[in-house]
Amino acid sequence: MPTNLQVVLARRPGPGPLTSDCFALREAALAEPADGQIRVKIAYVSLDPAMRGWVNDTRSYMPPVGIGEVMRAYSAGHVEASRHPDFKEGDAVQSVLGVQQYAVVKGSGRVIKVDTAKAPLERWVGGLGMPGWTAYFGLLEVGQPKEGETVVVSAASGAVGSVVGQIAKIKGCRAVGIAGGPDKCRYVTDVLGFDACIDYKAGNIAARLAEACPNGIDVNFENVGGDILDQILPRMNTFGRVAICGLISGYNATEPMPGPSTFRAILTQRLTVRGLIVTDWAPRIREAVAQLGEWHAGAKLKIREDVRTGGLGAFVETLNLLYTGGNNGKLVLKV
Amino acid sequence: MPTNLQVVLARRPGPGPLTSDCFALREAALAEPADGQIRVKIAYVSLDPAMRGWVNDTRSYMPPVGIGEVMRAYSAGHVEASRHPDFKEGDAVQSVLGVQQYAVVKGSGRVIKVDTAKAPLERWVGGLGMPGWTAYFGLLEVGQPKEGETVVVSAASGAVGSVVGQIAKIKGCRAVGIAGGPDKCRYVTDVLGFDACIDYKAGNIAARLAEACPNGIDVNFENVGGDILDQILPRMNTFGRVAICGLISGYNATEPMPGPSTFRAILTQRLTVRGLIVTDWAPRIREAVAQLGEWHAGAKLKIREDVRTGGLGAFVETLNLLYTGGNNGKLVLKV
Repeated sequence: MPTNLQVVLARRPGPGPLTSDCFALREAALAEPADGQIRVKIAYVSLDPAMRGWVNDTRSYMPPVGIGEVMRAYSAGHVEASRHPDFKEGDAVQSVLGVQQYAVVKGSGRVIKVDTAKAPLERWVGGLGMPGWTAYFGLLEVGQPKEGETVVVSAASGAVGSVVGQIAKIKGCRAVGIAGGPDKCRYVTDVLGFDACIDYKAGNIAARLAEACPNGIDVNFENVGGDILDQILPRMNTFGRVAICGLISGYNATEPMPGPSTFRAILTQRLTVRGLIVTDWAPRIREAVAQLGEWHAGAKLKIREDVRTGGLGAFVETLNLLYTGGNNGKLVLKV
Repeated sequence: MPTNLQVVLARRPGPGPLTSDCFALREAALAEPADGQIRVKIAYVSLDPAMRGWVNDTRSYMPPVGIGEVMRAYSAGHVEASRHPDFKEGDAVQSVLGVQQYAVVKGSGRVIKVDTAKAPLERWVGGLGMPGWTAYFGLLEVGQPKEGETVVVSAASGAVGSVVGQIAKIKGCRAVGIAGGPDKCRYVTDVLGFDACIDYKAGNIAARLAEACPNGIDVNFENVGGDILDQILPRMNTFGRVAICGLISGYNATEPMPGPSTFRAILTQRLTVRGLIVTDWAPRIREAVAQLGEWHAGAKLKIREDVRTGGLGAFVETLNLLYTGGNNGKLVLKV
């Protein structure tokens, strides 16, 4: 009987970095799709910062992954068996399919067919997938950048940040990235085309921000939080917008993280600070897919994946690269 | 020669509570109004939490009061001499006229004529003045309360908070106040008509908030910041709005205040947090004056002043009551 190797949550983790003993590999029986379902053979699992939050038993934007449940993930693969009229064997798809070899799911609108002639399969869970949609709606709807404004984005070489800055350029803004180390910063400016990139590991962020943003900051797309956000808020222009997409610097904290010490700038500069989760735009995902695909085809959007080949057994250690900045580009696990 | 007693900023204060030696009393010559100007004899000076920020030499929404300049304040009085066609002797007016006995100013649209038959003069720098306008625009434009929603406001017995909660009730919301001590809380519920009021001095704010807000919090109108905001954010409903009007708990801080430790709720609950300064709605002030006046006339808006009679020499000690909660109602200094 064919089996399905799955990564399941074995116990609820405490605060701090995830450890392998929180997860277990399980061999489950491979189910046949029922009427209306499809079976997908998963090729790539997207590893995202939000995963750290999904396993905490705290109030959040979706229920936590349950003990014994397959770890939640966006994944991409090919339809292997279909009992749904919209899908046929061989279709390349992406959806929330979990960290496993196979997924048997309803063939609903949440399963998105992708064109691997236009971009490799792994890119459809990366820059053209959820991280790309997040950048698209987060920057355009929450950030509302206007031509000539300055947009700052942290984790600028990452899956979301790299797309944010490139869309900012497409919209006629000055794009300033923040990333860790000279290699990432060079990639952000020389390959992605940002106007400047600040290496937060080189220190003196305040002076570098002032230099890179001579007209202040109109839009901050926040992926990191912590010290960097402290430095950004006082440099925001009046009526500036802050899109809170991620606060990765605090995800593995063992104590509650204080909010930004410069919180008062929200008042004095009348900033609008708004949290965003991409699923809030679920009815408009196809718009993002189409627009990002068009920019990608027109070479206006450069995307890089960091595909790791350790397999499902390496899930935790690979995921943890995200929180130490150990990845280069969108982190993807090959199944 | 007639003179004008003024409170001027004598030196730039350091962090911490204001001390009397930062200000000096000065007897200046009383000027005659030039063409287009009016002279106002000031009767009441409004003492507002924002004053603490106005004397700091830091980036803010308006330039700091300069050394040797008259302390900035909203004041009300009567026109004593006019060389402007729109104003005549005896008109009751309010405007930013400073902490002094007389003000000679341009008779511009920023000087607002008020009707003392409808409300006593001191009320026109209180609930029907800048604090009332702040409540009006802050709640309706930033908070955007919908019928049936829950609105929480801190410093609920204060000049701004008391109006916020009453407008929330007018709009069909559940109004929950936070105030210090049983007397203030009783006033908020029994006189102002809020649905509940939490005494933050009685401790256990988390449990009391949960009890007072069984359906969560949709709008938080923040006047205080600090520990109370920490407790409020995690109880906000998805897509809730936080109007940052004041952060008085930190105004006298000697160290930078950390932001809310529950800052992450902005992301997980996709809150919109927006700073507000009433002058951003300057072109619409007359709308607020008219609407507040109508509610006041219809007994839908109850307002209480705490008029102190110590005179200009008691400016600092009277102002400092605001930061310790020592006032009962809108704090006004009689000149």
